[in-house]
Amino acid sequence: MEDLTLHEDPRSGNCYKIRLTAALLGRPLARRGYDIMKGETRTPEFLQGVNANGRIPVLQVGSRFLPESNAACWYLAEGSPLIPADAFDRADMLRWMFFEQYNHEPNVATLRFWLLFVGEANLNVFQKDQIMAKRAGGEAALAVMEEHLAASDWFVGNSATLADIALYAYTHVCEAGGFRLRDHPAICRWLNRVSGLPGYVPMD
Amino acid sequence: MEDLTLHEDPRSGNCYKIRLTAALLGRPLARRGYDIMKGETRTPEFLQGVNANGRIPVLQVGSRFLPESNAACWYLAEGSPLIPADAFDRADMLRWMFFEQYNHEPNVATLRFWLLFVGEANLNVFQKDQIMAKRAGGEAALAVMEEHLAASDWFVGNSATLADIALYAYTHVCEAGGFRLRDHPAICRWLNRVSGLPGYVPMD
Repeated sequence: MEDLTLHEDPRSGNCYKIRLTAALLGRPLARRGYDIMKGETRTPEFLQGVNANGRIPVLQVGSRFLPESNAACWYLAEGSPLIPADAFDRADMLRWMFFEQYNHEPNVATLRFWLLFVGEANLNVFQKDQIMAKRAGGEAALAVMEEHLAASDWFVGNSATLADIALYAYTHVCEAGGFRLRDHPAICRWLNRVSGLPGYVPMD
Repeated sequence: MEDLTLHEDPRSGNCYKIRLTAALLGRPLARRGYDIMKGETRTPEFLQGVNANGRIPVLQVGSRFLPESNAACWYLAEGSPLIPADAFDRADMLRWMFFEQYNHEPNVATLRFWLLFVGEANLNVFQKDQIMAKRAGGEAALAVMEEHLAASDWFVGNSATLADIALYAYTHVCEAGGFRLRDHPAICRWLNRVSGLPGYVPMD
C-alpha cells in the first residue's frame, strides 16, 4: 500500500477529518505541518508542488497530491464500511458531505477561525459585516442536522459513515465560533456516538 | 430502473448539471419546476416532503429524495464512464467537485444570480459589500481551472467526467456574473469540448 502523508495545519477541522478517517480505519498517516496564519500554504513551492489552490489539507499518496478534505476521506475509505454498500445510501452520504462544505463549513468553521484564531478585534470591516449572516447560516445548518438526528442515530443508514466524520469535525468545536451545543440535544447525543467509535482520535 | 424526477428551477446551473448528466447517459428524467424567487422551495410542503434544507435541485428516485447537485450526478453516473475506474482518479474527480461547491459556485454562480436575476440595484448593503470579495474568489477559481486546463483536456484523466460537468454548469454562463471568458483561453477550448460531447443538451 502507498505511503500516505497529510499536509495539514493541526488547528484545521478539515485536516482533522482525514486524521480521524485514517485512525478509524487503522491506516498509518505521516503528517507535515504548515502554519496558515503565516501564509505557509501560499508560497511558490506549495502552490507548484502541493496544491495550486493554496489550501490545506492535501493528502499525498506516493508522489501524487489530493486536495479537498472530503475527497481525501473518500480515497482512504473506499472499500470500507465507512462508505455504504447501497448505491442510494452512497450518494446520500455524498449529499451530506456536499452540504457540509456548502452550508456548514463556510459558516460554522469560518466563525471559529475568525473568533478563535484571528480575534474579533482584528477582523476587517467586510468580515465584521458578514458575522450576522454566517451566524444565521451556521444556525440553519445545525437546525437541519438536529432535525435529522432527532430521528436517526447516524446521517446515513445504521452506522457511521464519512458523512458523520465530515460533519463532526467542525460541529464538535462549534462553541469556539459562538454556537451553543446545548440548544441541540440530538446533535450532542450524536457527538458522543462518534467519539465512542473504536479507534477514535481527538483533534489536537 | 426507478422513475427519476428532477425538482428544479431551470435557471439554476446546479439543476442543469443533473439534466446534462442524465442526457449524456441517455437516462430519461421527469422535471418539476419551482420558482426560487417566489420562495417556492421554502413552503412547509417542500421542507417536509422534498428537502428540509429548502433548496433545489433535488433528485427524486422513486419515493426517495436526494438533494445536492453533485451527489445527484454521482447517483446517476455510477457504473458509467463519467466516473473514473481508477481509485485515485475517482477521488480526484470528487476533489474538483468539492472545489466547485466551495471555491467556484459561491462566487461565480452567486454573482450571476445577483446581477442577472436580482439586479444590482436591488441588492442589500451586505450583498453589495460582498461583490468585490466574490469577484476575487471567482477569478481565483477560474485561474486554478485555467492553469489546469492549459496542460490537460479534461479535469481528470483523458475523457469527460462529472468534474467537467460540475464545473461547466456555471463557468459557461459566468459572463452573466461579470467574468470575462476571453481572459481564459484554455477554459474556452474546454467549454467547446464539453458542448461537443454526444448527447449534450444546453441550459434552458
